[in-house]
Order: sequence, then C-alpha cells, then structure tokens
Amino acid sequence: MPARIKRLDGNMLIAQSGGPTVVINQSLVGAIREARQHACICGIYGSLHGILGILEANFINLARESDATLEAVAVTPSSMLGSVRKKPSTEDCRRMFQVMQRHEVRYFFYIGGNDSAETTLIIHEEARRQRYDLRCFHICKTIDNDLRENDHTPGYGSGAGFVARAFMGDNLDNRALPGVKVNVVMGRQAGFLTAASALARVYPDDGPHLIYLPERPFTLARFIRDIKRVVAEHGRCVVAVSEGIVDGRGKPIAAKYITESDSHGNVQLSGSGALGDFLAEEVRQRMSIQRVRADTFGYMQRSFVGVYSEVDAHEAHQVGIHAVRFAVRAYAHGSVAIKRKAGKPYRVYYKRVPLDRVAKETRHMPDAFIHPDGNDVTQAFLEYAKPLVGALPRIGRFTEYPLPPK
Amino acid sequence: MPARIKRLDGNMLIAQSGGPTVVINQSLVGAIREARQHACICGIYGSLHGILGILEANFINLARESDATLEAVAVTPSSMLGSVRKKPSTEDCRRMFQVMQRHEVRYFFYIGGNDSAETTLIIHEEARRQRYDLRCFHICKTIDNDLRENDHTPGYGSGAGFVARAFMGDNLDNRALPGVKVNVVMGRQAGFLTAASALARVYPDDGPHLIYLPERPFTLARFIRDIKRVVAEHGRCVVAVSEGIVDGRGKPIAAKYITESDSHGNVQLSGSGALGDFLAEEVRQRMSIQRVRADTFGYMQRSFVGVYSEVDAHEAHQVGIHAVRFAVRAYAHGSVAIKRKAGKPYRVYYKRVPLDRVAKETRHMPDAFIHPDGNDVTQAFLEYAKPLVGALPRIGRFTEYPLPPK
Repeated sequence: MPARIKRLDGNMLIAQSGGPTVVINQSLVGAIREARQHACICGIYGSLHGILGILEANFINLARESDATLEAVAVTPSSMLGSVRKKPSTEDCRRMFQVMQRHEVRYFFYIGGNDSAETTLIIHEEARRQRYDLRCFHICKTIDNDLRENDHTPGYGSGAGFVARAFMGDNLDNRALPGVKVNVVMGRQAGFLTAASALARVYPDDGPHLIYLPERPFTLARFIRDIKRVVAEHGRCVVAVSEGIVDGRGKPIAAKYITESDSHGNVQLSGSGALGDFLAEEVRQRMSIQRVRADTFGYMQRSFVGVYSEVDAHEAHQVGIHAVRFAVRAYAHGSVAIKRKAGKPYRVYYKRVPLDRVAKETRHMPDAFIHPDGNDVTQAFLEYAKPLVGALPRIGRFTEYPLPPK
Repeated sequence: MPARIKRLDGNMLIAQSGGPTVVINQSLVGAIREARQHACICGIYGSLHGILGILEANFINLARESDATLEAVAVTPSSMLGSVRKKPSTEDCRRMFQVMQRHEVRYFFYIGGNDSAETTLIIHEEARRQRYDLRCFHICKTIDNDLRENDHTPGYGSGAGFVARAFMGDNLDNRALPGVKVNVVMGRQAGFLTAASALARVYPDDGPHLIYLPERPFTLARFIRDIKRVVAEHGRCVVAVSEGIVDGRGKPIAAKYITESDSHGNVQLSGSGALGDFLAEEVRQRMSIQRVRADTFGYMQRSFVGVYSEVDAHEAHQVGIHAVRFAVRAYAHGSVAIKRKAGKPYRVYYKRVPLDRVAKETRHMPDAFIHPDGNDVTQAFLEYAKPLVGALPRIGRFTEYPLPPK
C-alpha cells in the first residue's frame, strides 16, 4: 500500500465510460458534491464522452451547475457526460496530459467497469512515467456485477431489479398463454444479471424454470432435455439465458451470429435478437410444442427510466463521494470497492483498492451461487442478491376454489 | 338499440382471452366485485383459459375469493384466469351451451380485444339461434388500442407508459454512446403503441427522432434517407418502428421472416427479433456508421410488473364494473366502450355498444395523429395520449457551462 501523500491543489476532471447504468449519474453527482467540500479542489470539470473528451479538450464546467440540476441529473439514467469505448495508447496519454496540464487538472475520476479501470490504470502509470502529478481514481459501475474486489457494483441492483420484474411479468404471461419462452439477458462474462431472474419466483411453479449462465458450458442437447422435463411437469417453461453462454471450449454460442467487437476486444453481444431467435428455433425444431417465443431484453436493462433499486442509488452516490475523499486525503490512485459486512441486516463499507486489482480481468459467479446441475442458482445467491434489489411488486393469485356442490 | 329486458337469475361466467395487459385483472376484479352487489347473479365462476375452459368445464369459484386476494390479483399483470387464442365453431358453441346450462350460467363476460369481441358475438348469436337465454358481454382490453368505438382501451395507457419510459432511457443511452438505434414496438395493425414513444421526448434533440407506423407504407429507401438526415443533424438517431409496418401493397415487412399464425389468422409478429435485426443490418450495409443496434421490446410491453398508468388501472376496473351493470340492468349483449368527454380536464364515461361494432375489424391511428411526412406523430396525438399515460419520470440534464476563462 503506498504511503499517504500530501495536499495537492488543482482542478478535478471527471468522466464516464462504457455501458451506462440507471444510477451512474448518482456517482457523478456524489463526486461533484463532495469535491465542493474540499478547498484543494478548485475547478470541477466534466469531460464529454470519456477520454475522447480529454483528447479533444471537450470539457464543461460542473462547479456552476445548480443543486436542482445536480439532483435531477442524479436520478436520470445513462452517462450524462456521454460515454465511450476506447482504450488509450501511450501517445493518447501524452496528449491527454498536455490537455490536463493546460487545465491544471490534478484529480482525475473515471466512472466505469473493468475496461475503464484498465484505462484509469494506464493513465495512472503513464502519468507516473511522464512525471505528471495526477491522482487517478476509478469509480465502479456495471450492471454485469463482474468487477473483482467488489461484493457487488453500482448499477447491478437496479439492473437485477429490472430483470426480476421482467421475469415476474413474463412468467405470468407464460402462465396465461402456455408455451416455451426464452429470454436473453445481458452479461458478457458473468451470469449475475441472468441469475437475478430467479428473484422473480413467488409461487412454487413460477418461472424462470431454467437459468443458463456463462460460468457453465452450454449444450443444445442438455438445453432441450431440460426444457422437455419442465414442460412435462408444468405444461410450460420460462428460460433465462445469458447472452454470454459459451460452449465446452469457451466459445460464445452467439459468436457465429455476431462479428462486431469494440477496442477492448469484446465481442458485441447486445443489440441483436440473434441468440434468442436461434435458441427458440432449435426448441421449435426439436420439440412438438406450439408456442415458442424468444425475447432479448436489450438496452432497457441498463437504461429504462423509473425502475431502480434505492440501495443501489444510495451506494452509487456513496462510491462517488468516497472516490473524492480517498483522492483528497490519502491515495495517489485506486478504485472504490463496495464491501459487505458480515451478518444481518445488510450493511456495506467502501474501501480503496489498487487499480490493477479491478482492471482487465472480470469476476465470475462463485460456485456457491450456481446450482450443481448448472441450470439454476442457489439459495445462497438469492440471499446475496435480495438486499441489493430491494422490495419487488406484490404478485397475487386466486386460491382457485372448486365450484359449489349442486 | 334493443329494448330493455327483464330480470334474469343465474350464475355468471367470466373469462379472459388474447394477449394479456398489466391491468387486465382490474377488469376481472371490477366485474367480480360488482357482481356481488346483484341478487340476480348467484354464483360467480371463472373459466380457465377462455373458451377452452368452457368446453372442458374447467371452472373455479370466484365468489369465495377473499377481498385481500381480489385486491392482490387486481394489481397483478397478465390474465389471472389464463388466456387462449381460439375462435369457436358452431359446434364449439353448442358444447359450450351444454356446459353453461349444466352450470346454470346466464351471464357471460369475455375480457379481450377485437378477436374476443368476435368470439363473444359468435356466442351471443349462436345462443339466440339455439334459444339459450344468455347475456353476453365483451370487456375491452388491448395494449394495441385498436378497438373501434373506444376513445382508447384498457391496457393501452400502461403499455404506452412502458414504451415511453423505454424510449426515455434508450434516448439517454444513445446520447451517451451515439449511433443508430432501432426499437421495434408491438402493434399488429395500429400504430398507437409505437406512437407513444414520442412521449419520451423532453429536450428538443431527444429521440425517438423517427417513428414508423403500420398506417403508412414503409420503404427501406425512405427509412435510410430519413436516418441519414437525422444522423447528419444530431450525430445519432433513435428510431421507433411498429412490428406491423407494411409495404406499399399492405404486406407486412416482417412477413418474410415469420410464418406462424393463430386461429384468427393473425401472423405472429412478436416473440422474435427478426424485423429489428433485419432493419439494423440494412442500416449497417447502407450507411457508414459504426454503432447500429436493434432491440425488440417484446412481451415486457404487455406484462412487465410495477410499471402502469393509474388512470389505466382505474378505467380497467370501471369497465369491468360497467359490463356487469349493463348486463344486469339493461342489455342482452354488448361491449363496454370508453368515451372521452370534450374539453379539459380529461374525463371519460362508459357506454354499452353493440358487439358487432367492435368485433373483427380494428381501428387505426387517425390521420390527424400522423405527421404529414409519415415518419412521426402530431401534437394532437401527444395531447390525446398524455392523460392516458400519466406523469413520467423526470429527466435531468446539465446546463453545460463553458470552462471559466483563464
């Protein structure tokens, strides 16, 4: 752990990167509000579209935004400063430091996932190499919940709540008009968001009846066998499938349908219904069942307005606050991790962790959260996820009394 | 208008049919509660899965359900009695009357869209022909809002509110990560639900920037030209496309990708991402733009839990109540239509209309609601739709002050 460092005066620059979440602006506003409390932070600048805005010196002055505006921005989904998917080169860093130096920037905050943590790490290491005195902090967010060192990440609780509500409704829809329904859920590497579909279950026969995660190899034969068993039992079947499911050799099932990838090398899995349609067609071909449908939940999972977890919104705000506190009081660089305290009730604390511990590699669902059969989650997962999502809407059902005797 | 008819004692049978909505059980519970007020209605039976339940005498006793259960069911989305897509034959009707007679059913209520109105009409006409004394009422519902005689239908306001929230979020997502985004919205024949995407606009540059409805012929050339213009102006483009868009000869654009149809002869357009993926691929091929994505909103539009319009829920309840009142006090058959009173504030009344006026044929968006260019809606539509959807979440935005001068 690096030694504590002395007071540094300068301006602060904050930016957002990667896929948005519905609470990502809570972190932004938390950081802005906290920065106003510290005399060593003079100007508060926002870079538009992440590091692209730094390269082009495309900044706005956040210090002047009113409290009412900040409050409204905090509750608005999706990166208000704009986002980007870009990994900086050494040359990019050199240009960025020139821009930062011109604007006397000494505090840099980057809100994003593991790719953004990698970008923050690159900027931090280049700054040290090029002897540019800069405090670099990563502020975590991702609906995928796949950041190492974190019990969970801001954005996940709200995304999980959206997925749970969608499956609650879809299970009722499927109960009314029985058939096989396949829903494809986001999550490139980790199954946390798909797993959250299990929170939709209220009654014993409720779906999702099957859950397929990227952490376990997926085979079509097994998939069809599982669905046949569920249909035999319930006369219907609701399935949650992660967009990131892979075959036995780790190759994404969706890969043969999608070719695009971003500059971090991630294959683009969202924004297409191909995987769901493929799976539904396989079910149709291999089973004698009339109604087979697929939905791909898509970007709604990360940006639908009005559905969010209060716990998630609060924590996202706190992570922004803590990043500024860590940068001002103690450390040259780091990422703010959410840690859960042992026992009940649910409580968390915020910890600074080194950037290289969250950058690049992602976290997967632990084995304890995955059913031994590989097609469901465990009670341990449900207990983990429930406090992050908060209360879900009530689902009623008739007692279904028989007719009176004649 | 038929003459008022005298008191008829017997049991009541109620069922649900067609695609569910999030408020369809409000109508069911409204009808049950109202039926309890009338001495001429003895038993209150629910048929499971529409007319299929009648053919199989698969009934439950709704009279015994507790107030707490009714309250919980009312706020739960999707047809609680189960649904079906089936048009009865003369022989089906004969069998149904045998079952009804055995159960002393004299009041029949069918909650559904125009196909269900047609079913109710067939049952009514067959009952008269076979001299079975039965009061037949259709209770309207459909997120498509395509029932004739109605200002709007129960289910639409909530579905429209879901679509508006989805587009609010997706517009913010697209603003953060610019590109072309195509969202396919439900609505087999009418563009009302797709049109509701326009309610998402808060700021002048907000999407959806283009809206394509089934009421106007769709051409790819025009679609691409429109998108190019919007991208040139805003650097991005969010598009709302109805699943029911048709070419110049009235043939669904989606038809070449989807073959399934139901027993009313409707081609199955939902439950597949094919149309959105096709349109996105066309944009990718014909434009030099990096990010092109498509989402198909799917069944969430009709069954997502926790997002609904209070006005819609209230009116759905009232439609159920009024169906029972009309059946008990006045008419042998009919459908309950929602009529809007002239002027402001928004007020409605409920009117009994003959079944043949809502059965089969659907209603389309009036010309006054469609922009002359055929790729947007009008202010008149927005004023029509706003009170049905109710308040939408607040969307904030930075003032974007320039940096302080040095």
